[in-house]
Amino acid sequence: MTVDLNADMGEGFGPWPMGSDAELLDVITSANIACGFHAGDPDVMAATMARAVKAGVGIGAHPGFPDLQGFGRRRMSLKPDEVRHLVAYQLGAAQAMARLVGGKVRHLKLHGALANMAAEDVSLAKAAYEGALAVDPDIIVMVITATQQQAAVEDLGCRWAGEIFADRAYNDDCTLVDRSKPGAVIHDPEVAAKRVVAMVKAGGIIAESGLVIPAAVDTICLHGDGATAVKIAKAVRQALLDEGIELAQFQGR
Amino acid sequence: MTVDLNADMGEGFGPWPMGSDAELLDVITSANIACGFHAGDPDVMAATMARAVKAGVGIGAHPGFPDLQGFGRRRMSLKPDEVRHLVAYQLGAAQAMARLVGGKVRHLKLHGALANMAAEDVSLAKAAYEGALAVDPDIIVMVITATQQQAAVEDLGCRWAGEIFADRAYNDDCTLVDRSKPGAVIHDPEVAAKRVVAMVKAGGIIAESGLVIPAAVDTICLHGDGATAVKIAKAVRQALLDEGIELAQFQGR
Amino acid sequence: MTVDLNADMGEGFGPWPMGSDAELLDVITSANIACGFHAGDPDVMAATMARAVKAGVGIGAHPGFPDLQGFGRRRMSLKPDEVRHLVAYQLGAAQAMARLVGGKVRHLKLHGALANMAAEDVSLAKAAYEGALAVDPDIIVMVITATQQQAAVEDLGCRWAGEIFADRAYNDDCTLVDRSKPGAVIHDPEVAAKRVVAMVKAGGIIAESGLVIPAAVDTICLHGDGATAVKIAKAVRQALLDEGIELAQFQGR
Amino acid sequence: MTVDLNADMGEGFGPWPMGSDAELLDVITSANIACGFHAGDPDVMAATMARAVKAGVGIGAHPGFPDLQGFGRRRMSLKPDEVRHLVAYQLGAAQAMARLVGGKVRHLKLHGALANMAAEDVSLAKAAYEGALAVDPDIIVMVITATQQQAAVEDLGCRWAGEIFADRAYNDDCTLVDRSKPGAVIHDPEVAAKRVVAMVKAGGIIAESGLVIPAAVDTICLHGDGATAVKIAKAVRQALLDEGIELAQFQGR
Repeated sequence: MTVDLNADMGEGFGPWPMGSDAELLDVITSANIACGFHAGDPDVMAATMARAVKAGVGIGAHPGFPDLQGFGRRRMSLKPDEVRHLVAYQLGAAQAMARLVGGKVRHLKLHGALANMAAEDVSLAKAAYEGALAVDPDIIVMVITATQQQAAVEDLGCRWAGEIFADRAYNDDCTLVDRSKPGAVIHDPEVAAKRVVAMVKAGGIIAESGLVIPAAVDTICLHGDGATAVKIAKAVRQALLDEGIELAQFQGR
Repeated sequence: MTVDLNADMGEGFGPWPMGSDAELLDVITSANIACGFHAGDPDVMAATMARAVKAGVGIGAHPGFPDLQGFGRRRMSLKPDEVRHLVAYQLGAAQAMARLVGGKVRHLKLHGALANMAAEDVSLAKAAYEGALAVDPDIIVMVITATQQQAAVEDLGCRWAGEIFADRAYNDDCTLVDRSKPGAVIHDPEVAAKRVVAMVKAGGIIAESGLVIPAAVDTICLHGDGATAVKIAKAVRQALLDEGIELAQFQGR
Repeated sequence: MTVDLNADMGEGFGPWPMGSDAELLDVITSANIACGFHAGDPDVMAATMARAVKAGVGIGAHPGFPDLQGFGRRRMSLKPDEVRHLVAYQLGAAQAMARLVGGKVRHLKLHGALANMAAEDVSLAKAAYEGALAVDPDIIVMVITATQQQAAVEDLGCRWAGEIFADRAYNDDCTLVDRSKPGAVIHDPEVAAKRVVAMVKAGGIIAESGLVIPAAVDTICLHGDGATAVKIAKAVRQALLDEGIELAQFQGR
Repeated sequence: MTVDLNADMGEGFGPWPMGSDAELLDVITSANIACGFHAGDPDVMAATMARAVKAGVGIGAHPGFPDLQGFGRRRMSLKPDEVRHLVAYQLGAAQAMARLVGGKVRHLKLHGALANMAAEDVSLAKAAYEGALAVDPDIIVMVITATQQQAAVEDLGCRWAGEIFADRAYNDDCTLVDRSKPGAVIHDPEVAAKRVVAMVKAGGIIAESGLVIPAAVDTICLHGDGATAVKIAKAVRQALLDEGIELAQFQGR
């Protein structure tokens, strides 16, 4: 039994650092690295990828909207071709920076508002992934399990891996419990760790109600912003290892 | 006897077009395509490269400083590593856009102030070219003949091609005659065409004084801004063909 | 009987010009000048405002979303405070550039997607206008007549002027006829001119059906992109003068 | 006997904070606030200025080069008019954000590479200050004492204040001791505090050699990056108060 642990990384820009990259590199197996549009300038990308290569962590391109101030978290209405080109451009840049430091981009994950919109809109998701696949047909597309992102990769027939969240409660239809409801976000590292172990073992999402829905649990999304996030990340890792579950980069479905 | 004709292209951005790309594509054999930092967004890049592929024109990455307002023509003091990463990033993005439209980046040429500074400073030129070669060791680096750009590629031992200008007069030391002096810039298409033919035949630069200096004349730099520039480009092409000189993409030294 | 003619201006950026500013300055009485976020860098702003001052044309700030590539035409989901600050910032910058050339910003008009969203959403419109009014309580806010933009200024109780379009057909509820329908966009200068004259005389919008709806017809929106647009602008001006209607900057309601 | 204490502030951007603004506001009397080009987006500016107003700290515009990635610290070769417009634009934006929060921009200080270049080049300094004075003839220009910045304000005849550094050793000609030399940068809060008190009392710069050069000591430049910097800032403040020196916003010469 094997699972991957992923986190966003390289989210600084110019003089501004962000996150706990150094700590997370000891926890995760795959890193989603910002590509310069919402965060991550060429220098930050090179430094982050060099650290990922050294730590044996898989490198992923993490493209987002061209909105530094909004950190790619503000929705923008782009045409499908604009999305296609935006993703291709950022993936190409990431490939180059990876090569520069002796690494290779093996996966792609959408960031922020682009990811949220793609999770809702299969045609937007397809446009984004087509942009990436045209650049590298072998790239593994990381999708949020049981969303339109997954529908898109299934439709495209490409390699993919499904991710679930360590710190979010699920509804019976695999959507996330709304943040405004109690228990929607999990803050206790032990609770998060137990849930993740159970879902990996079950091979599916376990809703708040206890319902088990078979689903792609290929990688666990961890966060690196704040002390609690890093604690959760470490607890999840330890609990998985304690249960004899192997941590390794996903190979794609 | 063979020579290449090159021009900058894809220098629009968003809603703003620039230049005479469509006309130039019938004239040149290699296009230097802006990579998003001084001009050329992902959509412009994709459209420009698709046209280049269709026209059978060689695609080059044309990286510049991150200065849209200044069109990459304002000098910026960057550290060597910043230059290395800047060039790698833009080359990677260009490679991706080329792949997206069924093409391939075969050469690299620096733009604007970055090119001017590299022509004067061999270590800056080397940093820039190292960034490109780390991404693609087979890329052909287009240099301004008889400048520190050429010194850099000779030192690096990479594939390269040397360019001369169709519309600029040369001093005896292969530097360009200062723009403030009469005759420094050639506006007459016939004069420009004759000079280019003579230099290609001579295999070197012919200075204003008449002095012939053996030099790398692999490609002729043409401009596309303004009616005169396009006339010069067409005249140069026709004169070369009339003399039985073959026009073809450079293969690199 | 008096009316104002307005057009967007100063929509170049760096090396890229746009529009027919010089021609339009002889036609209009108020110019909406881009403020650097979707177009118009500080140099373009200074040059455009200097020309407006010389021509006796009223200067307006024309703020848009921070999206150069999309020319401010792509919708972005910003919080009300972000909109408030965005508009204040751009207005302040415009005021400074106007002062530098001996002019003054007397009105404000939202650009592109920001304008479209504000026309639909009164709270967004209010946030934008509050940002402007906090900077200059006397500024005249130019709104699209009979939209939520107008509802916002009426609610805020500020000075305002209502604009109608010279080249667009109206429905009976004062909305624009959808562009996909025949006749939605008027291309014939004479037709456009006649409609404008009729609406100014009627003091209201005249729908495609012939229905006259009393409305704020303080200024006519003209376009400057393309030969047809300039022809329409000139025809509208001439027709208004021929009917003895005075062309003058609006004073605000 | 009175002196001002100043520090840079509002140097975050989008999701990225920077510095110890909250702590410094209790120490300083004047804040130099980034204006969006090298740091400080409209939201950061509004929040920072609101805090400054609340703390009774004087607000200054702190314009820099348009280079977010380089934090305005990389030299750029701009024409005088470009500098004039750049400064005017940023000052206007700062004035608007100040008005929005009930404050007022009373001084201007150049940032980073723009400041360094202006300290060496009187015509560049004059271009920058002319841009500011055209927008507000009463603005107090903060200059680095005994540099070409000071020469520029003397030549322009505007209101100005001279600043010295709390943590840098001076040569006998009032230039800063090169950072590569031992003792060039002062890390000990007590040493820094003593030097500042001595210079304020002496009404001039005291060089490393002990030489006292009469000079404009109107404000002391403090830093906010790192624990040591804040300690120095607090020590300087306390030492000045202990000596009965009043801390108050400069009024300009």
